[in-house]
Amino acid sequence: MLPSSFLHDLSSIVGSAWVRTDDETRARCSVDALKRGGRAPDVVVVPGTAAEVAGVARLCTAARVPLVPRGGGTGYSGGSVPVRGGVVVSMERFTRILEIDQDNLLAVVEPNVVTGTLQDAVEAVGLFYPPDPASLRESVIGGNVAECAGGPRAFKYGTTKNYILGLEAVLPTGEVVRTGGKTVKNVVGYDLTHLLVGSEGTLAIVTKVIVRLVPKPPARTTIRATFPSVSAAGQAVQEVVRERVVPATLELIDRDSLAAVARYLGTDALAPAGTEALLLIEVDGLVPAVAEEALRVEQACRRAGALDVLRSRTDEEREELWRVRRSLSDAQKLVAPMKINHDVVVPKGRIPRLLDIIDGLRREFDLRITCFGHAGDGNIHVNMMVDPADEAEVARARRAEPRLFEAVVALEGAISGEHGIGVTKASFVPIMLSSDEIALMKRVKAAFDPHGILNPGKMFPE
Amino acid sequence: MLPSSFLHDLSSIVGSAWVRTDDETRARCSVDALKRGGRAPDVVVVPGTAAEVAGVARLCTAARVPLVPRGGGTGYSGGSVPVRGGVVVSMERFTRILEIDQDNLLAVVEPNVVTGTLQDAVEAVGLFYPPDPASLRESVIGGNVAECAGGPRAFKYGTTKNYILGLEAVLPTGEVVRTGGKTVKNVVGYDLTHLLVGSEGTLAIVTKVIVRLVPKPPARTTIRATFPSVSAAGQAVQEVVRERVVPATLELIDRDSLAAVARYLGTDALAPAGTEALLLIEVDGLVPAVAEEALRVEQACRRAGALDVLRSRTDEEREELWRVRRSLSDAQKLVAPMKINHDVVVPKGRIPRLLDIIDGLRREFDLRITCFGHAGDGNIHVNMMVDPADEAEVARARRAEPRLFEAVVALEGAISGEHGIGVTKASFVPIMLSSDEIALMKRVKAAFDPHGILNPGKMFPE
Repeated sequence: MLPSSFLHDLSSIVGSAWVRTDDETRARCSVDALKRGGRAPDVVVVPGTAAEVAGVARLCTAARVPLVPRGGGTGYSGGSVPVRGGVVVSMERFTRILEIDQDNLLAVVEPNVVTGTLQDAVEAVGLFYPPDPASLRESVIGGNVAECAGGPRAFKYGTTKNYILGLEAVLPTGEVVRTGGKTVKNVVGYDLTHLLVGSEGTLAIVTKVIVRLVPKPPARTTIRATFPSVSAAGQAVQEVVRERVVPATLELIDRDSLAAVARYLGTDALAPAGTEALLLIEVDGLVPAVAEEALRVEQACRRAGALDVLRSRTDEEREELWRVRRSLSDAQKLVAPMKINHDVVVPKGRIPRLLDIIDGLRREFDLRITCFGHAGDGNIHVNMMVDPADEAEVARARRAEPRLFEAVVALEGAISGEHGIGVTKASFVPIMLSSDEIALMKRVKAAFDPHGILNPGKMFPE
Repeated sequence: MLPSSFLHDLSSIVGSAWVRTDDETRARCSVDALKRGGRAPDVVVVPGTAAEVAGVARLCTAARVPLVPRGGGTGYSGGSVPVRGGVVVSMERFTRILEIDQDNLLAVVEPNVVTGTLQDAVEAVGLFYPPDPASLRESVIGGNVAECAGGPRAFKYGTTKNYILGLEAVLPTGEVVRTGGKTVKNVVGYDLTHLLVGSEGTLAIVTKVIVRLVPKPPARTTIRATFPSVSAAGQAVQEVVRERVVPATLELIDRDSLAAVARYLGTDALAPAGTEALLLIEVDGLVPAVAEEALRVEQACRRAGALDVLRSRTDEEREELWRVRRSLSDAQKLVAPMKINHDVVVPKGRIPRLLDIIDGLRREFDLRITCFGHAGDGNIHVNMMVDPADEAEVARARRAEPRLFEAVVALEGAISGEHGIGVTKASFVPIMLSSDEIALMKRVKAAFDPHGILNPGKMFPE
């Protein structure tokens, strides 16, 4: 329990209306999209300015009280979930798009702007903010920055980090710092911008974000190809790469995921009989370039032995092709009530080997595992679907997890491609990082947060 | 002077043939491209493996001896120049391209691979490594990583940091760490890769680099447009941006630079009479896209009031258009014997304001200042051309320098876009970074280098 003087001090910084200790608010701020709670915060504060955030940070540092920043609360790894109580600083009042600078291809936004809202605003003037996490209608830019959100477009466009030019951030000790700026080139001092991106709210609290924009591609076309084996689909990915085409998206869906969507949509004709894997490939750019690249993608798929290849000719046809992909998440729920979801990533040429290994885990541990994901960047969502009432099944899944991660690391991949480590994967980090590397990262953490009050208990094994 | 036992210990790590104390080697390793020396090192060691680098680092940390890593020695800001003597660790034996992985669009290289050599090797298989510092035939990848090298292609392609997927590096305390990996997506722990890029050899010694590659653009076309004023050229840049075209390069050359090249080439017909600024614009991509974008660039230049617009139809014509740009550096030498060169950067829409301000400095301080650079990313090379024998002129230039930097910061730019801070700009850093920001960066430095032995005296004011 925090002393009442602490709450009084918080009120004097942000105003008493913005200090919340009611059970509903505290409960809401104790979970993320996984709905697995940590320890409810003692208090939720809702500052309105960077100076107020700084005041709260100074107070927490002085009192050695845990301070956990919270954006949209839509994460998958517990990054915004307090595990030691303390103060949650909710950024919900930081929702303004401050500037869209068409001449310099950038926007300045506050951290709680919803990602999709920013996308809509810049597309209205012919610009484009490419990162597109599946949660883009609920997740916010600050959370995307904290987790380095990815999505399907990373092969061509990169992830969040490729679009962050600069930040304003508050250190746990209360200093307001600016990193980067409004130019792509900037080599003055260390690149703290990209150190903060993906730091999961453990180094600083972001209060302003400068994002880089690109021209909106004027045309796009989606191609759907079905394959008699995962290895044939993997071969198609390689054929596309060898054609030197870089699609905007290159999504892979496995047989079990397709079956789940078919059940969900109440149909049995999603793909030709014998389909073991499906690729959804979108190319974008200038009209003549899209036509040429779409043709080369189709040819690449046919060479790899596709069962059939469809190309969208209209936006309606494009939406129809994407319906399967969009239904995946909801459809999973029909397989089993609980999803232990991982977002592993391997060099894209090694996806067939990864899926072979997962097939082995399926059999060895008698598990239902669906796979889909971003074949262009090697990021595959591996969902172990379990019934939480079946303790034996959950235990088998927990035993399979480290085996999956060890296989990914052996394939020179990473145990998380876009969700982050948070609390859910912290214990697995030593599979990938050496003790020297973890020690170095902890020293970097201490350079920002000497008393360890900011989002404690995340990212590293305790 | 180092004790002989220290030299003996160095020999036992790398072999006595790789420990150099001769005057010629020490002198060579005491300067960079500026030819302004620091303090010659006591010894130059040439390790052959990361383990040997680690041994040297541990020895230097134990003895508190300065350790300065050296790549190609082609920098412009003194990053590889020792200022306190000690040990230079020359990476000249790390010259292998270890792997070009066409399936996964990456290469693994040792740090002293010459940038142009890597470009040639990957282009031979249809791939492309875009960063292209002017020194690319002499500078090496490790140095490019240390300084975050830029070049003309940053508007479309970004700088070195956008192409570094992972590093192997030796800490000053001797640990060998790996950062990042072989995938674009990777959110496991802090992004130390991008912290090391641009850290000017002050945090760790890079011993291996994983670079991201993209398909080589099959076509390219160069357009040369001349303008009656700098503001008209600036207007053309904005028109191109508003056309949503992103050229591969967008180079600006001012009247004084053009005059220097004309003298150098012994001609007076480089551009139409009345030319105050010249733009060289290259578009690349698929054949039909290049044709469409080149047309839109030409129209944009004409709308902005170009005096004339030329487009290359053949590789020979393209080379002819680029001849002026390639001659710029040598031509400067005819203006005055000494170049105080800065690589400031502003948001691209503010280049005309920057050039106006520089015109004011020219008059106020009676200086010859030539400007050219990368208009697409706002990075302008500002060359104060002086005669070192004319002490009054040099003094006027030194007084103009902080004024230039203050103007750049007021325009929301950065005092260095691609050369780095090193020793030449260290005293100006407080114009741009706050004391809190510098203090934070120094704490990050201490997290890597607790005893401050690695490349001391760089990047921050003493």
